[in-house]
Amino acid sequence: MKTKKFLLQEQDIPTAWYNIVADMATKPQPMLNPGTKEPLKAEDLYPLFARSLAEQELNTTDTWIEIPEEVRDLYKNWRPTPLVRAYGLERALDTPAHIYFKNESVSPVGSHKLNSAIPQAYFCRKEGVTNITTETGAGQWGAAMSYAAQAFGLELAVYMVKVSYNQKPYRRSIMQTFGAQVIASPSMSTKAGRKILTDHPTYQGSLGTAISEAVELAMQTPNCKYVLGSMLNHVALHQTVIGLEAEKQMEMAGEYPDVVIACFGGGSNFSGLSFPFLRHKLTEGRTLRVVAAEPASCPKLTRGRFQYDFGDEAGHTPLIPMYTLGHTFAPAHIHAGGLRYHGAGAIVSQLKKDGLMDAVDIPQLETFGAARLFAETEGIIPAPESAHAIAATIREAKEAKEEGKARTILFNLSGHGLIDMTAYDQYLAGDLTNYVLPDEVLNASLNA
Amino acid sequence: MKTKKFLLQEQDIPTAWYNIVADMATKPQPMLNPGTKEPLKAEDLYPLFARSLAEQELNTTDTWIEIPEEVRDLYKNWRPTPLVRAYGLERALDTPAHIYFKNESVSPVGSHKLNSAIPQAYFCRKEGVTNITTETGAGQWGAAMSYAAQAFGLELAVYMVKVSYNQKPYRRSIMQTFGAQVIASPSMSTKAGRKILTDHPTYQGSLGTAISEAVELAMQTPNCKYVLGSMLNHVALHQTVIGLEAEKQMEMAGEYPDVVIACFGGGSNFSGLSFPFLRHKLTEGRTLRVVAAEPASCPKLTRGRFQYDFGDEAGHTPLIPMYTLGHTFAPAHIHAGGLRYHGAGAIVSQLKKDGLMDAVDIPQLETFGAARLFAETEGIIPAPESAHAIAATIREAKEAKEEGKARTILFNLSGHGLIDMTAYDQYLAGDLTNYVLPDEVLNASLNA
Repeated sequence: MKTKKFLLQEQDIPTAWYNIVADMATKPQPMLNPGTKEPLKAEDLYPLFARSLAEQELNTTDTWIEIPEEVRDLYKNWRPTPLVRAYGLERALDTPAHIYFKNESVSPVGSHKLNSAIPQAYFCRKEGVTNITTETGAGQWGAAMSYAAQAFGLELAVYMVKVSYNQKPYRRSIMQTFGAQVIASPSMSTKAGRKILTDHPTYQGSLGTAISEAVELAMQTPNCKYVLGSMLNHVALHQTVIGLEAEKQMEMAGEYPDVVIACFGGGSNFSGLSFPFLRHKLTEGRTLRVVAAEPASCPKLTRGRFQYDFGDEAGHTPLIPMYTLGHTFAPAHIHAGGLRYHGAGAIVSQLKKDGLMDAVDIPQLETFGAARLFAETEGIIPAPESAHAIAATIREAKEAKEEGKARTILFNLSGHGLIDMTAYDQYLAGDLTNYVLPDEVLNASLNA
Repeated sequence: MKTKKFLLQEQDIPTAWYNIVADMATKPQPMLNPGTKEPLKAEDLYPLFARSLAEQELNTTDTWIEIPEEVRDLYKNWRPTPLVRAYGLERALDTPAHIYFKNESVSPVGSHKLNSAIPQAYFCRKEGVTNITTETGAGQWGAAMSYAAQAFGLELAVYMVKVSYNQKPYRRSIMQTFGAQVIASPSMSTKAGRKILTDHPTYQGSLGTAISEAVELAMQTPNCKYVLGSMLNHVALHQTVIGLEAEKQMEMAGEYPDVVIACFGGGSNFSGLSFPFLRHKLTEGRTLRVVAAEPASCPKLTRGRFQYDFGDEAGHTPLIPMYTLGHTFAPAHIHAGGLRYHGAGAIVSQLKKDGLMDAVDIPQLETFGAARLFAETEGIIPAPESAHAIAATIREAKEAKEEGKARTILFNLSGHGLIDMTAYDQYLAGDLTNYVLPDEVLNASLNA
């Protein structure tokens, strides 16, 4: 009987996160204080972030950062996650490629987001913080953060992008069941929200706007910090547990990936799976392709510009060196709500600039077609975000077939889609479209 | 670091199902042909069920029934499932009890139902069946059967109890994503459905009615068989993979359960977890309590009558010896849709009659309170059905605390509640009530 799942035990949960910056020959450019244009220091971040997280954010020297015992203890709720050989998908594609996926969908909230939510709540709690704010796109991060906040006794307010708030009511309910306050963004509860609603009363929200609102509330609330589920270096750091486990599991499978693929929103699941493999490329010169799969409607890595930009709509954040579509970019209402963000994190942006990784952009209908084939052949209905990784995987597997050559593909199944069924309803009803970002919209946004 | 999850490898997936009937001193009484009142023979079942399943249904002699390789191969999509020590829940209850749960919620459709859906589809396919029909309450069985049907290339029609069809649209979408036809029951597509809609135009359905419709369609469709997700002996048989794995995992934990608990609808997850442990009681005289947790609104084991009754509303099925509330019983619209069934399976009914197991009935609000505490402490939002097992577990843990004595409790987390968030919304809004079945309603139903 062929092994389908490569399973680790709890003692195999990594004891340290991997900080790729320490291994990068060209470090990411520093974040800048938007007023002074000076490189940001950790203390500049303290008003907004827990100190430990601010220090992790700017740490360019320590390759390994120890995972606290309390965090590993909560990771045990669902980690290690399985590495799965997708025999069913391979058969359906009749491909010589070997397809593996890391199944992060088995987490209690259905996605990889808990990997960073738990340490962020832990460090806030440890430093005496009582309240936190955050934003969420599809609701995956908000759901994860709600559980983590509750596990460490923190009060949490979540600004949820309005289009997702309406499309994904179950995610809102999950957050509320864990005791979080959930506010549809843009809202009237912040200056940033009120301004946008005044200018555009029917605006359905974006991550950029929700970040502005969450940051504003954090700055005005006593003993309150802001937490973020993607984009930042310390989030990527926490997510490396994914790739560190996958590294061991690929060894168990007796293979090494030719290509590592993950969907791309701000970079959290992408960084998590790929950085431990990129380490072999950076430090051992190993050959390996790494591919970020982004939506054709929000293609910052494939069509954005590398420049300093704000992380949020209102311009509250530091200036970040990144591939961006412009911080006022208003993304289309595609169903992969977690991928509707205007920029890529600083580390990923530098890696892309240096040619150490690739990106592809994929139209919505191709992603749902891939999702359905995956559901039929592997039994798991993927999140619309993860479907981008599946679509990119299928492209690779078809290429391998055309070439008549084996290829080992590893992708991240960042989450399941059981709470995204509205999207599947619309797909099955033929109501979804392919929106590809027009050049003129892109240029207008970049020059805004 | 304390072990939280006891994990097996794929080679530990059981190779045979456990047939408890072979070990029972008093066998269940035979099912009867309703016309002749003669004990049913396998051939009487052939028009409705695949032959292999009909034979399993009536097998009273073979203790172990081999699991086909193709079935084990699909079990590998998610099995073995973890056994988890609920340290968080123990801490919150400040109890000396040790609480373990078998986590069946990690299956791709979120519940234990795949354990029987896959072999049922396999045997149908093997015997050349092309079409199948079934019914579903909460939608857990329908979702599982939809994937299984699709994996073996079978056409599937699912009658979904109307109240769940409306309360749980995501489950309907899941079935449709896997290619199934889904019909709200009662429907106008069958004689049984039309009769009920004529008599009670606003009737919101019951499993009994949905079974009538699915059976009727199966009997009128060429090359079509009917499949059922609970109640029947062969379903309980397939589900024993749960308990067989748990048996090994409790050994890994170095403990043996004083009490084994599962929620109870028709008996599928209950039988699955408990039968392999009851084996120790039946064959080795081991001391062990086994408790079925049912809703106070549908209390067949605690308050029903042991008698021959039909499995469906319309009286299409054989007569089954069982604890029943009457086959025309109209259950209240509680949120644990999978527990709204009038009768218990024949094996469980005999075990209960012989004092080999217990049952408790639990009001709805207690189950949601238990669910919320479990979510807060273990991070998993349970299905409303599984919440009954959690509530019964909490009662046991509190008793242990009052006695000041240790107690090892094992319960089945049959599914997660991520697709049942409407129920949690209503609970959090204070809109749910405790409906306890009144004696006069029970008596009227039993004497109907």
